[in-house]
Amino acid sequence: MSRGYTVAVVGAGLVGERLVAELRRRDFPIEELRVLARTARRVEMAGETFDVGVAEPEAFEGVDYALFAGTEGEKGAAVQLAREAVARGAVVVDNGSDFRLDPEVPLVVPEVNAHDLEGHGGIIANPNCSTTQMVVPLAPLAREFGLKRVVVSTYQAVSGSGRSGVEALEEGREGVYPKPIAGNAIPQIGDIGEDGYSTEERKMKAESRKILGLPDLVVHPTTVRIPVHTGHAESVYVETERDVTLDEVLGLLGSAPGVTFSGAADAIPTPLEAAGDPGTHVGRVRVGERTVEYWCVADNLLKGAATNAVQIAEALAGARAAKARA
Amino acid sequence: MSRGYTVAVVGAGLVGERLVAELRRRDFPIEELRVLARTARRVEMAGETFDVGVAEPEAFEGVDYALFAGTEGEKGAAVQLAREAVARGAVVVDNGSDFRLDPEVPLVVPEVNAHDLEGHGGIIANPNCSTTQMVVPLAPLAREFGLKRVVVSTYQAVSGSGRSGVEALEEGREGVYPKPIAGNAIPQIGDIGEDGYSTEERKMKAESRKILGLPDLVVHPTTVRIPVHTGHAESVYVETERDVTLDEVLGLLGSAPGVTFSGAADAIPTPLEAAGDPGTHVGRVRVGERTVEYWCVADNLLKGAATNAVQIAEALAGARAAKARA
Repeated sequence: MSRGYTVAVVGAGLVGERLVAELRRRDFPIEELRVLARTARRVEMAGETFDVGVAEPEAFEGVDYALFAGTEGEKGAAVQLAREAVARGAVVVDNGSDFRLDPEVPLVVPEVNAHDLEGHGGIIANPNCSTTQMVVPLAPLAREFGLKRVVVSTYQAVSGSGRSGVEALEEGREGVYPKPIAGNAIPQIGDIGEDGYSTEERKMKAESRKILGLPDLVVHPTTVRIPVHTGHAESVYVETERDVTLDEVLGLLGSAPGVTFSGAADAIPTPLEAAGDPGTHVGRVRVGERTVEYWCVADNLLKGAATNAVQIAEALAGARAAKARA
Repeated sequence: MSRGYTVAVVGAGLVGERLVAELRRRDFPIEELRVLARTARRVEMAGETFDVGVAEPEAFEGVDYALFAGTEGEKGAAVQLAREAVARGAVVVDNGSDFRLDPEVPLVVPEVNAHDLEGHGGIIANPNCSTTQMVVPLAPLAREFGLKRVVVSTYQAVSGSGRSGVEALEEGREGVYPKPIAGNAIPQIGDIGEDGYSTEERKMKAESRKILGLPDLVVHPTTVRIPVHTGHAESVYVETERDVTLDEVLGLLGSAPGVTFSGAADAIPTPLEAAGDPGTHVGRVRVGERTVEYWCVADNLLKGAATNAVQIAEALAGARAAKARA
């Protein structure tokens, strides 16, 4: 590639910071990196100083890739802004939830469904953090054995709620969660709907079906916030269509892209170790006749957000470069 | 009843203290209350001062009910001591794991299988804390709908490991857990066996089958320690034999003995609220065609240990009084 791209990171919170860090760590070819947020200011992010620009339509002039952190509280604004960026020629990777279930918008975990990027209309959605780390090890199981049913219980970190979540844990900030989170476990993330499932649980159902291309997949999620700073964990139970053996599953997980797995069925990865690492760590593998159980942990700000978004940008840039060569 | 009983509490740790407190709170008819432990000393427990006697065979002379707290690290000794107590005429309720799967020993959650106390041989086993709180709401579902399969993921408090667990959380004491527990989630409780399940998970499988009288019940547990002081939580997914409706399930749980349930399917009980309370709190109830999901929370030292043991003693004393009257 002869030149780098002009990249905009939209959002200067925890995810915005990780987006900058991941772009640099993964050496994404950048000529100009802009950070945009609601208000202009000078900030330190991932060891660099940025003059943050206001996230308004004109700020996307000349931008090749715009990575939206998906901050809370400005849903409508983010949708509008993303469309304005696309109108100016940018390709948007959005970490918010607005576009994820739009049939026109690919929802992508590159290890699983990079092929869905083809023919995109300028906006690509980054999945919910809990969904992403679940499907990374689930995809090879789906391909090899077929999936009948998934039961998943999550153990989610407070940084998934941004800085306010961290303050709720560390300083007892009220109003962030429905109950105190320090020394507690709260089985509600988002609002509980008429079907009995919370917003987060409905995301896990709908998004995993779309990413895996299994519109009828039965998913029973229970999402729970626990007093952990960073690193979501999940206890996943899978019913398969075909018989499985432990050796097959260990082999599949050991070679699955994006999966960090020691190969030991009794590995016990934890959030403290996964925080700061871009991989999806797998352990506690157990196999029945047509069942697989596993425990997975990933940094919710990295693979759950920034890493996956940058991987999408890499796939897009790779496809563009290939087209240019052809 | 004309007189009270002579009761011995064996163990002066967190569970021993709760046993004393629960005997008093529930007004168990006591003429003499002895506290026994490895070493003689004077201790404050639940607002009373006790001259703790040495837990040796002679100390059980004249004891009607001996409630063993089930402290770790002296397994063989506890078995021997329990048999010595029985030889001296005491009925033993043991909170340890030694006798639970002995076919001669009833394993009892009074709300579920008090009938199993009949014809006991002097020793009754108190189940593992995680099992007890799971079966309290599960038993009415089993009776009404039949059970095909249970998938359960736990969120367990450090006081389940006694004072050393609390020190691991609050003071960073090492050697208690395989990884640091503060700000973390550790998916291993006990040792992981050849079948891939941990000691705690094997207990949940075997004990729930015995208590529910369903020797073929399929249970898939994943047990996880989280940074909570007291109060275990569980995410439970149940497949039933017959169709279920939400109204039926809400009605059953609302009237189930031992279950604390507001009646609202979207209730979100948490460990912070359940700690100090003897009930099994249920919430997050969801129903599919032949599936029920719920979240339950109980104080692991109370319903998970002391409360259940005292309830067993009450059932035994009630049966004895009834026999005396007959």
